Amino acid sequence: MENVLGTKLITQIGILVHDIEATSRAYAQFFGVEKPQWSITDEVDKAQTQYRGKRSDARAKLAFFDMGSLQLELIEPDHNPSTWRESLDRNGEGPHHVAFVIKGMKEKIAVLERNQMPLLQKGEYTGGRYAYLDTLRDLKVIIELLENDGE
Amino acid sequence: MENVLGTKLITQIGILVHDIEATSRAYAQFFGVEKPQWSITDEVDKAQTQYRGKRSDARAKLAFFDMGSLQLELIEPDHNPSTWRESLDRNGEGPHHVAFVIKGMKEKIAVLERNQMPLLQKGEYTGGRYAYLDTLRDLKVIIELLENDGE
Repeated sequence: MENVLGTKLITQIGILVHDIEATSRAYAQFFGVEKPQWSITDEVDKAQTQYRGKRSDARAKLAFFDMGSLQLELIEPDHNPSTWRESLDRNGEGPHHVAFVIKGMKEKIAVLERNQMPLLQKGEYTGGRYAYLDTLRDLKVIIELLENDGE
Repeated sequence: MENVLGTKLITQIGILVHDIEATSRAYAQFFGVEKPQWSITDEVDKAQTQYRGKRSDARAKLAFFDMGSLQLELIEPDHNPSTWRESLDRNGEGPHHVAFVIKGMKEKIAVLERNQMPLLQKGEYTGGRYAYLDTLRDLKVIIELLENDGE
Protein backbone atom coordinates (compact mmCIF):
# COMPACT_ATOMS: atom_id res chain seq x y z
CA MET A 1 0.00 0.00 0.00
CA GLU A 2 1.23 3.50 -0.73
CA ASN A 3 1.33 6.15 1.97
CA VAL A 4 -2.33 7.06 2.41
CA LEU A 5 -1.69 10.50 3.84
CA GLY A 6 1.13 11.51 1.47
CA THR A 7 3.25 12.31 4.54
CA LYS A 8 4.60 10.66 7.65
CA LEU A 9 5.57 13.87 9.40
CA ILE A 10 3.81 14.14 12.75
CA THR A 11 3.31 17.87 13.29
CA GLN A 12 1.32 17.87 16.50
CA ILE A 13 0.41 15.88 19.59
CA GLY A 14 -2.92 16.81 21.16
CA ILE A 15 -3.44 16.32 24.90
CA LEU A 16 -6.83 16.51 26.62
CA VAL A 17 -6.99 18.41 29.90
CA HIS A 18 -9.66 19.45 32.39
CA ASP A 19 -8.13 22.84 33.20
CA ILE A 20 -6.19 24.48 30.39
CA GLU A 21 -4.97 27.33 32.61
CA ALA A 22 -3.44 25.00 35.18
CA THR A 23 -1.85 22.63 32.68
CA SER A 24 -0.56 25.47 30.49
CA ARG A 25 1.09 26.94 33.59
CA ALA A 26 2.65 23.57 34.45
CA TYR A 27 4.05 23.13 30.92
CA ALA A 28 5.34 26.70 30.79
CA GLN A 29 7.13 26.26 34.10
CA PHE A 30 8.49 22.85 33.22
CA PHE A 31 9.93 23.93 29.88
CA GLY A 32 10.94 27.43 30.95
CA VAL A 33 8.75 29.23 28.42
CA GLU A 34 6.02 31.85 28.68
CA LYS A 35 2.53 30.58 29.29
CA PRO A 36 0.65 30.93 26.01
CA GLN A 37 -2.78 32.54 26.00
CA TRP A 38 -5.44 29.96 25.15
CA SER A 39 -7.86 30.54 22.30
CA ILE A 40 -11.26 28.99 21.71
CA THR A 41 -12.49 27.21 18.60
CA ASP A 42 -15.15 28.94 16.52
CA GLU A 43 -18.89 28.60 17.07
CA VAL A 44 -20.66 25.92 15.07
CA ASP A 45 -22.05 28.33 12.47
CA LYS A 46 -18.53 29.34 11.52
CA ALA A 47 -16.67 26.09 12.29
CA GLN A 48 -19.32 23.83 10.71
CA THR A 49 -18.46 21.32 13.41
CA GLN A 50 -19.70 17.80 12.80
CA TYR A 51 -19.29 14.96 15.26
CA ARG A 52 -20.20 11.44 14.16
CA GLY A 53 -22.12 12.86 11.23
CA LYS A 54 -24.18 15.37 13.20
CA ARG A 55 -23.81 19.10 13.66
CA SER A 56 -22.39 19.80 17.14
CA ASP A 57 -22.10 22.95 19.23
CA ALA A 58 -18.88 21.57 20.73
CA ARG A 59 -16.03 24.00 21.25
CA ALA A 60 -12.68 23.70 22.98
CA LYS A 61 -10.07 25.94 24.52
CA LEU A 62 -6.70 25.37 22.86
CA ALA A 63 -3.15 26.25 23.89
CA PHE A 64 -0.03 25.53 21.84
CA PHE A 65 3.61 24.90 22.73
CA ASP A 66 6.42 24.53 20.20
CA MET A 67 8.46 21.45 21.09
CA GLY A 68 11.19 21.24 18.50
CA SER A 69 9.59 20.62 15.13
CA LEU A 70 6.52 19.35 16.90
CA GLN A 71 3.60 21.30 18.27
CA LEU A 72 2.05 20.26 21.53
CA GLU A 73 -1.63 21.19 21.78
CA LEU A 74 -3.56 21.28 25.04
CA ILE A 75 -7.31 20.87 24.60
CA GLU A 76 -10.02 21.63 27.16
CA PRO A 77 -13.35 20.71 25.57
CA ASP A 78 -16.77 21.93 26.62
CA HIS A 79 -19.55 19.44 27.41
CA ASN A 80 -21.16 19.26 23.98
CA PRO A 81 -20.62 16.06 21.97
CA SER A 82 -17.14 15.81 20.46
CA THR A 83 -14.28 13.36 20.14
CA TRP A 84 -12.50 15.51 22.71
CA ARG A 85 -15.28 15.20 25.31
CA GLU A 86 -15.83 11.52 24.54
CA SER A 87 -12.16 10.64 24.99
CA LEU A 88 -11.78 12.81 28.08
CA ASP A 89 -14.81 11.19 29.71
CA ARG A 90 -13.71 7.70 28.72
CA ASN A 91 -9.95 7.81 29.28
CA GLY A 92 -9.31 10.88 31.41
CA GLU A 93 -6.64 13.45 30.71
CA GLY A 94 -3.82 12.55 28.36
CA PRO A 95 -2.85 12.19 24.70
CA HIS A 96 -5.78 12.33 22.26
CA HIS A 97 -4.28 12.45 18.76
CA VAL A 98 -1.29 12.90 16.51
CA ALA A 99 -1.75 15.28 13.58
CA PHE A 100 -0.53 15.40 10.00
CA VAL A 101 -0.72 18.28 7.52
CA ILE A 102 -2.23 16.98 4.31
CA LYS A 103 -3.66 18.15 0.99
CA GLY A 104 -7.01 17.09 -0.40
CA MET A 105 -9.10 16.63 2.72
CA LYS A 106 -12.19 15.12 1.08
CA GLU A 107 -10.21 12.54 -0.87
CA LYS A 108 -8.09 11.56 2.15
CA ILE A 109 -11.17 11.11 4.32
CA ALA A 110 -12.80 8.99 1.61
CA VAL A 111 -9.77 6.70 1.32
CA LEU A 112 -9.51 6.29 5.08
CA GLU A 113 -13.20 5.55 5.46
CA ARG A 114 -12.89 2.87 2.78
CA ASN A 115 -10.13 1.36 4.95
CA GLN A 116 -12.32 1.05 8.06
CA MET A 117 -11.04 4.29 9.55
CA PRO A 118 -14.27 6.25 10.00
CA LEU A 119 -14.50 10.01 10.27
CA LEU A 120 -15.11 11.03 13.88
CA GLN A 121 -15.27 14.80 13.70
CA LYS A 122 -14.52 17.60 11.31
CA GLY A 123 -14.64 21.37 11.23
CA GLU A 124 -13.25 24.57 9.81
CA TYR A 125 -10.88 27.11 11.29
CA THR A 126 -9.59 30.39 9.90
CA GLY A 127 -7.34 29.39 7.02
CA GLY A 128 -8.11 25.69 6.94
CA ARG A 129 -9.95 22.65 8.17
CA TYR A 130 -9.43 19.57 10.32
CA ALA A 131 -10.71 16.02 10.57
CA TYR A 132 -10.31 13.34 13.22
CA LEU A 133 -10.36 9.74 12.03
CA ASP A 134 -10.99 6.71 14.19
CA THR A 135 -7.73 4.90 13.55
CA LEU A 136 -7.71 3.30 17.00
CA ARG A 137 -8.24 -0.26 15.82
CA ASP A 138 -5.16 -0.27 13.58
CA LEU A 139 -2.88 2.50 14.87
CA LYS A 140 -3.93 2.69 18.56
CA VAL A 141 -4.18 6.46 18.40
CA ILE A 142 -6.61 8.91 16.78
CA ILE A 143 -5.22 10.70 13.73
CA GLU A 144 -6.02 14.30 12.93
CA LEU A 145 -5.69 15.66 9.41
CA LEU A 146 -5.00 19.37 8.97
CA GLU A 147 -5.40 21.11 5.64
CA ASN A 148 -4.25 24.72 5.42
CA ASP A 149 -5.29 26.90 2.50
CA GLY A 150 -2.50 28.40 0.47
CA GLU A 151 0.14 25.92 1.62
CA MET B 1 11.68 28.23 36.65
CA GLU B 2 14.34 27.35 34.11
CA ASN B 3 13.88 24.46 31.69
CA VAL B 4 14.34 21.42 33.92
CA LEU B 5 15.35 19.07 31.12
CA GLY B 6 17.64 21.45 29.24
CA THR B 7 15.61 20.71 26.10
CA LYS B 8 12.06 20.90 24.82
CA LEU B 9 12.65 18.72 21.78
CA ILE B 10 10.31 15.72 21.83
CA THR B 11 12.25 12.95 20.11
CA GLN B 12 9.86 10.05 20.53
CA ILE B 13 6.27 9.05 21.18
CA GLY B 14 5.83 5.62 22.75
CA ILE B 15 2.66 3.63 22.09
CA LEU B 16 1.64 0.52 24.02
CA VAL B 17 0.28 -2.39 22.01
CA HIS B 18 -0.84 -5.96 22.68
CA ASP B 19 0.55 -7.39 19.44
CA ILE B 20 3.64 -5.70 18.06
CA GLU B 21 3.59 -7.76 14.86
CA ALA B 22 0.05 -6.77 13.96
CA THR B 23 0.43 -3.09 14.84
CA SER B 24 3.82 -2.82 13.13
CA ARG B 25 2.22 -4.26 10.01
CA ALA B 26 -0.64 -1.76 10.21
CA TYR B 27 1.74 1.19 10.59
CA ALA B 28 3.98 -0.02 7.79
CA GLN B 29 1.00 -0.35 5.45
CA PHE B 30 -0.53 2.94 6.48
CA PHE B 31 2.67 4.93 5.98
CA GLY B 32 3.94 2.97 2.99
CA VAL B 33 7.18 1.85 4.64
CA GLU B 34 8.79 -1.50 5.33
CA LYS B 35 7.73 -3.27 8.49
CA PRO B 36 10.64 -2.95 10.92
CA GLN B 37 11.86 -6.02 12.77
CA TRP B 38 11.07 -5.71 16.47
CA SER B 39 13.81 -6.09 19.06
CA ILE B 40 13.53 -7.01 22.73
CA THR B 41 14.92 -5.10 25.71
CA ASP B 42 17.79 -6.70 27.62
CA GLU B 43 17.40 -9.12 30.51
CA VAL B 44 17.39 -7.62 33.97
CA ASP B 45 21.02 -8.53 34.72
CA LYS B 46 22.17 -6.45 31.79
CA ALA B 47 19.43 -3.79 31.75
CA GLN B 48 19.41 -3.30 35.54
CA THR B 49 15.68 -2.69 35.22
CA GLN B 50 14.03 -1.09 38.24
CA TYR B 51 10.32 -0.44 38.52
CA ARG B 52 9.04 1.60 41.45
CA GLY B 53 12.33 1.10 43.24
CA LYS B 54 12.49 -2.67 42.85
CA ARG B 55 14.43 -4.85 40.45
CA SER B 56 12.08 -6.19 37.77
CA ASP B 57 12.39 -8.93 35.18
CA ALA B 58 10.17 -6.89 32.85
CA ARG B 59 11.09 -6.81 29.19
CA ALA B 60 9.35 -5.46 26.13
CA LYS B 61 9.36 -5.93 22.39
CA LEU B 62 10.09 -2.62 20.64
CA ALA B 63 9.60 -1.47 17.05
CA PHE B 64 10.57 1.95 15.72
CA PHE B 65 9.25 4.13 12.92
CA ASP B 66 10.82 7.42 11.80
CA MET B 67 8.06 10.02 11.46
CA GLY B 68 9.78 13.18 10.35
CA SER B 69 12.12 14.31 13.12
CA LEU B 70 10.15 12.22 15.55
CA GLN B 71 10.47 8.54 16.34
CA LEU B 72 7.38 6.49 16.94
CA GLU B 73 8.01 3.53 19.25
CA LEU B 74 5.63 0.59 19.55
CA ILE B 75 5.96 -1.29 22.85
CA GLU B 76 4.63 -4.76 23.65
CA PRO B 77 5.49 -5.46 27.29
CA ASP B 78 5.66 -8.84 28.96
CA HIS B 79 3.66 -9.54 32.13
CA ASN B 80 6.33 -8.65 34.67
CA PRO B 81 5.87 -5.41 36.64
CA SER B 82 6.67 -2.30 34.58
CA THR B 83 5.21 1.08 33.75
CA TRP B 84 4.43 -0.42 30.32
CA ARG B 85 2.38 -3.29 31.74
CA GLU B 86 0.72 -1.09 34.36
CA SER B 87 -0.40 1.48 31.79
CA LEU B 88 -1.48 -1.15 29.29
CA ASP B 89 -3.57 -2.95 31.91
CA ARG B 90 -5.05 0.29 33.21
CA ASN B 91 -5.64 2.29 30.02
CA GLY B 92 -5.43 -0.22 27.19
CA GLU B 93 -3.46 0.29 24.01
CA GLY B 94 -2.36 3.80 23.13
CA PRO B 95 0.19 6.52 23.85
CA HIS B 96 2.37 5.88 26.91
CA HIS B 97 5.09 8.56 26.91
CA VAL B 98 6.93 11.32 25.13
CA ALA B 99 10.72 11.17 25.29
CA PHE B 100 13.52 13.72 25.53
CA VAL B 101 17.26 13.19 25.05
CA ILE B 102 19.04 14.70 28.04
CA LYS B 103 22.45 14.85 29.70
CA GLY B 104 23.08 14.10 33.36
CA MET B 105 20.49 11.46 34.12
CA LYS B 106 21.03 11.26 37.89
CA GLU B 107 20.80 15.02 38.37
CA LYS B 108 17.72 15.34 36.17
CA ILE B 109 15.93 12.55 38.03
CA ALA B 110 16.84 14.18 41.36
CA VAL B 111 15.44 17.57 40.27
CA LEU B 112 12.24 16.01 38.96
CA GLU B 113 11.71 13.94 42.10
CA ARG B 114 12.11 17.11 44.19
CA ASN B 115 9.30 18.58 42.05
CA GLN B 116 6.84 15.78 42.83
CA MET B 117 7.59 13.91 39.63
CA PRO B 118 8.67 10.51 40.96
CA LEU B 119 10.82 8.03 39.11
CA LEU B 120 8.68 5.16 37.78
CA GLN B 121 11.19 2.97 36.02
CA LYS B 122 14.77 3.02 34.82
CA GLY B 123 17.16 0.80 32.98
CA GLU B 124 20.18 0.51 30.75
CA TYR B 125 20.46 -0.25 27.05
CA THR B 126 23.51 -0.64 24.85
CA GLY B 127 24.97 2.84 24.62
CA GLY B 128 22.79 4.57 27.16
CA ARG B 129 20.05 4.56 29.75
CA TYR B 130 16.42 5.57 30.18
CA ALA B 131 14.11 6.71 32.92
CA TYR B 132 10.34 7.15 33.07
CA LEU B 133 9.03 9.85 35.41
CA ASP B 134 5.49 10.11 36.71
CA THR B 135 4.65 13.55 35.33
CA LEU B 136 0.97 12.69 34.94
CA ARG B 137 -0.30 15.06 37.61
CA ASP B 138 1.25 18.15 36.00
CA LEU B 139 1.82 17.27 32.34
CA LYS B 140 -0.87 14.59 31.76
CA VAL B 141 1.63 12.31 30.06
CA ILE B 142 4.57 10.21 31.25
CA ILE B 143 7.97 11.62 30.30
CA GLU B 144 10.91 9.42 29.35
CA LEU B 145 14.48 10.66 29.62
CA LEU B 146 17.08 9.14 27.31
CA GLU B 147 20.79 9.60 27.88
CA ASN B 148 23.12 8.32 25.21
CA ASP B 149 26.82 7.90 25.89
CA GLY B 150 29.14 9.84 23.65
CA GLU B 151 26.54 12.35 22.47
